Amino acid sequence: MVKIQFPDGQCKEFVRGTTVAEVAQSISASLGKLAVAGKLNGGLVDLDFKLSDDAQLVVISIDSQEGLEIMRHTTAHVLAQAVKRLFADVKLGIGPVIEDGFYYDLNLERSLTPEDLLTIEKEMLKIVKEDMEIKRLGVTLEEARRLFKNQPYKLEILDDLTSDQNISVYQQGEFMDLCRGPHLRSTGKIKAFKLAKVSGAYWRGDKENDVLQRVYGVAFHKDTDLKNHFHILVEAAKRDHRKLGKQLELFMFSEEAPGMPFYLPKGQIIRNELERFARELQESASYEEVRTPFMLNQKLWEKSGHWDHYKENMYFTEVDEKSYALKPMNCPGHMLIFKNKLHSYRDLPVRMAEFGQVHRHEYSGALNGMLRVRTFCQDDAHIFVREDQIESEIKQIFQLVDKVYQTFGFDYSVELSTRPEDSLGDDMLWEHAESALTNVLNDLGMAYHLNIGDGAFYGPKIDFHIKDALKRSHQCATIQLDFQMPEKFDLHYVNEQGEKQRPVVIHRAVFGSIDRFFGILVEHFGGAFPVWLAPVQVEIIPVSDVHIDYCKMVKSLLSKDGVRVEINRSSEKIGYKIRAAQLQKVPCVLVVGDREVANRCVNLRRYGQKDSELVAVDSFKEQIVNEIIQKLI
Amino acid sequence: MVKIQFPDGQCKEFVRGTTVAEVAQSISASLGKLAVAGKLNGGLVDLDFKLSDDAQLVVISIDSQEGLEIMRHTTAHVLAQAVKRLFADVKLGIGPVIEDGFYYDLNLERSLTPEDLLTIEKEMLKIVKEDMEIKRLGVTLEEARRLFKNQPYKLEILDDLTSDQNISVYQQGEFMDLCRGPHLRSTGKIKAFKLAKVSGAYWRGDKENDVLQRVYGVAFHKDTDLKNHFHILVEAAKRDHRKLGKQLELFMFSEEAPGMPFYLPKGQIIRNELERFARELQESASYEEVRTPFMLNQKLWEKSGHWDHYKENMYFTEVDEKSYALKPMNCPGHMLIFKNKLHSYRDLPVRMAEFGQVHRHEYSGALNGMLRVRTFCQDDAHIFVREDQIESEIKQIFQLVDKVYQTFGFDYSVELSTRPEDSLGDDMLWEHAESALTNVLNDLGMAYHLNIGDGAFYGPKIDFHIKDALKRSHQCATIQLDFQMPEKFDLHYVNEQGEKQRPVVIHRAVFGSIDRFFGILVEHFGGAFPVWLAPVQVEIIPVSDVHIDYCKMVKSLLSKDGVRVEINRSSEKIGYKIRAAQLQKVPCVLVVGDREVANRCVNLRRYGQKDSELVAVDSFKEQIVNEIIQKLI
Repeated sequence: MVKIQFPDGQCKEFVRGTTVAEVAQSISASLGKLAVAGKLNGGLVDLDFKLSDDAQLVVISIDSQEGLEIMRHTTAHVLAQAVKRLFADVKLGIGPVIEDGFYYDLNLERSLTPEDLLTIEKEMLKIVKEDMEIKRLGVTLEEARRLFKNQPYKLEILDDLTSDQNISVYQQGEFMDLCRGPHLRSTGKIKAFKLAKVSGAYWRGDKENDVLQRVYGVAFHKDTDLKNHFHILVEAAKRDHRKLGKQLELFMFSEEAPGMPFYLPKGQIIRNELERFARELQESASYEEVRTPFMLNQKLWEKSGHWDHYKENMYFTEVDEKSYALKPMNCPGHMLIFKNKLHSYRDLPVRMAEFGQVHRHEYSGALNGMLRVRTFCQDDAHIFVREDQIESEIKQIFQLVDKVYQTFGFDYSVELSTRPEDSLGDDMLWEHAESALTNVLNDLGMAYHLNIGDGAFYGPKIDFHIKDALKRSHQCATIQLDFQMPEKFDLHYVNEQGEKQRPVVIHRAVFGSIDRFFGILVEHFGGAFPVWLAPVQVEIIPVSDVHIDYCKMVKSLLSKDGVRVEINRSSEKIGYKIRAAQLQKVPCVLVVGDREVANRCVNLRRYGQKDSELVAVDSFKEQIVNEIIQKLI
Repeated sequence: MVKIQFPDGQCKEFVRGTTVAEVAQSISASLGKLAVAGKLNGGLVDLDFKLSDDAQLVVISIDSQEGLEIMRHTTAHVLAQAVKRLFADVKLGIGPVIEDGFYYDLNLERSLTPEDLLTIEKEMLKIVKEDMEIKRLGVTLEEARRLFKNQPYKLEILDDLTSDQNISVYQQGEFMDLCRGPHLRSTGKIKAFKLAKVSGAYWRGDKENDVLQRVYGVAFHKDTDLKNHFHILVEAAKRDHRKLGKQLELFMFSEEAPGMPFYLPKGQIIRNELERFARELQESASYEEVRTPFMLNQKLWEKSGHWDHYKENMYFTEVDEKSYALKPMNCPGHMLIFKNKLHSYRDLPVRMAEFGQVHRHEYSGALNGMLRVRTFCQDDAHIFVREDQIESEIKQIFQLVDKVYQTFGFDYSVELSTRPEDSLGDDMLWEHAESALTNVLNDLGMAYHLNIGDGAFYGPKIDFHIKDALKRSHQCATIQLDFQMPEKFDLHYVNEQGEKQRPVVIHRAVFGSIDRFFGILVEHFGGAFPVWLAPVQVEIIPVSDVHIDYCKMVKSLLSKDGVRVEINRSSEKIGYKIRAAQLQKVPCVLVVGDREVANRCVNLRRYGQKDSELVAVDSFKEQIVNEIIQKLI
């Protein structure tokens, strides 16, 4: 008998030689059906794997992320099999799983066309229908060399192996592939898939090697997931912030400063609103704003540890023949401010905030509009607390984050990362800090993902992941406890006994990078910003010149309350002007003609709504001012 | 007869050989009395100078700046004479005029003490009383060498002269000095003076030379001016922004970043208010705000001309092995933004504003708190106009500047600088631009100082000089026309005929540098900021703990309207707390005890006022909110 322990901690005994599939079946018939593989002591195995020793086992179900990835892997094999049927002399490279799907690298005599992809897809569907059993064969290096004697890339892979290694080959029908596995039990278990595109790729990513054709595919549990995937792709392309940034004149980039955004007037209005919003919330949460230099000398960065650990991401300059670095983070400047003054335990927490412009190098290939830049502004804060204040302070930050994300309509999830192997700092402090974080999460009834050992070496942390309108996830806010920075800068406060004591520092950001958050917002709203953020909130279109005075009256009425209004006095037709305003995604378009003037009304057309309605000017004003103040979305 | 032209354009004939003094007397008896020298064809001459040719003449009166400087120069001679009487073997260096006074460099066997200065001063007063005639003697180089054979520094000066040069010596009683003049007619004409201090100085500023003792003095027309001068010195020391910056916790500097300010929370509140104020005014004047990168590549700075003309003030860094510079100005970034889009004549003026953080190197010895820094934020704007819009646009800028300076209670004067010798650009454009500037100044009835030929090579300019509470002058706002930048960046708009046309660029700043303006404000207000700027606007002091709830109610009432309120709950005595608030120059201190609670009142004590008064809470709120909104000073 072997003793098997399951994820819930329970143990069960099985006859030695029982397969993973049988174990799954023994737990429940439904699990037996859904099972696609097992995770044995952390390593993946096939369903047919026979249990020979006591072990921990997780049954992988096809509707889990890992199950889905196994299905994608099998689909890659099916792709290779189909190609081989259609192009007998194909030389196969590798076929790994990637986000949303898989690819396979192929060497073919001619380039594949989109029509070829359809033909291959058809052949793949046939293979799925054939529902061939997929078998794992353990082979020796010699046997493997013989099996793949016509496949030079596979032979190259085998060249890297030694004869004492276990080599496995997977077989389905006439097709065999060199593979670690695991795989589905048969080709018929594959659900929804689609080939996406083909592009070029060097064998093993080396420019000296052959260029292969990389065929990409996506695969999901269900057809609806597949459809949704393509829907999101189309939506994401429409919402691409780089495209919308141009179309709506929000920002630009220049080859004179790659990765460094230029905010155009309309983008700057939004950026200012974001900053104002954060500033207001911070003021009411008793933060104190500061502003620190954009560069500091080498000595300081050595002290903070950035010189040793972050140098390759920093930009340097010289002042009076001494080396300076543009700040990649605001922390050291804030430490200097804290140190500038004596603090009593009564002064804590000190909540020091800065809209701090930092510079961090990124490879030019990694730059991506506003989402990956070389300079950005953080809504950064460092909170200096006593140990006994950690919990209440973290709670306050949670409230702030929640308020901000709710305002934009973001769902979010939370991850807690705890003490890593190579951590620094007192055991008691770590325990205290981790339990403080856990307590807060529990008190708030917040579900969270636990990343054991994934904290920073200087303290545990909580990350927030927001989900945008397309359900894409972005890590934005972060709360990090830091026991090291106060040590390095020899910070202290005077406690109730009159003794010097080290404060704990909490790093936190809510937007994270204002610039990146701005980019995310553009895509989240598809450029159709809520009224409070919209660069032009109201566009007034006079039916003819005789209505212009009335338009000006309406504009001045609204402007007085801070509403951003434009009158379109161009000579275009009304329909054209309305469409132009819609292209600019202006939230409220007011058309004004005789009837509107006579009744002190406006004809209001909301962005995204088909119909317009007649509204009294004063009532419209009340409406829109209310929306702006309440930041409605 | 010689024909003499006066500054008012009038001409008069005089007998050849008439002295300047006689001419002055002939104009009026009072001018005859006040005259101290003449300016003949632009060069200064003594009153005894005999007119020998037709010329332009300005009679210099003692109550003019130039007259005052002549008096200061004579006072320097009197100082040297007095020292020579007291220390016979003194070796004299030079004795020039400086701001507010003069100095004389002396080589003496022993260091002068403060008591010595008093003794010298007494001797000087005696010399003034002796009222000796001051005579100018023309001498040859040989004669001069003989006269000063015991004065090695004078001989050194003579070594640099050639025998064909006119050498003049001034004599008063037993004392003679080598000097170009002019001087007062007699020592008795000297009015109010005082010796200030003594310090060391190398002969001719060269470290290889002897160290001399430099005795400083100040001199004025009237005793009241002299008193006022010392009063201002004392006041200025009290108001020193570096001292107040520390005391009021407004900003700090660190050796890790010399010349780069750290705004502490209270200073940042003021800075934010200044930025908000400028932003509001700009919005209502239809400016569009942008934000451009902090560094741009070498190519761009070469194009803009900064690489050739401004390099020694710039900081450099490297990105992807290419040279970048931190921006010392915002112009090039704004040019790129203008160029990013097609512009029609209808779109102009485009008013592009940025709170742009620039870096400019300064020698460490030149750094001076916030007044001279290495990085600062400009309230910068570039306005792209058609030629026919220059005048109206300049007028609008004047209104903006006037509004800002009035808000802070600054008087200001204006200087117009016109086309220099080495200017670039079309003649017509220069004429048009200069007459536009002159027209605006005349239309506004604005007196101005004309600096002929002092404009930038790229266009004429207007500078604004504000006068602070101590009547010290600071150049802040500037309006510069630029015909070159649009050329360099090949900017254009499409005119009414559908043709490409170059816009003119107007550079303008109102604060100039927000950081420097902030420093000036600290000194202008002596740290006692008007309510709208004060970091803490109201401090509430409860008489005892039972009044705290009421204090909180008052605070929350005021905070709701954005008033910055603090409650001082420390255990100190009330008198101590009131004094502490006064030291922090809090504009309104509210003391709250039984009587106040019973009557829903506060006991209000305004900063700088001796008495306090009982005011109803609601009425106080109305008062202070009104002061804040109206930015009363």
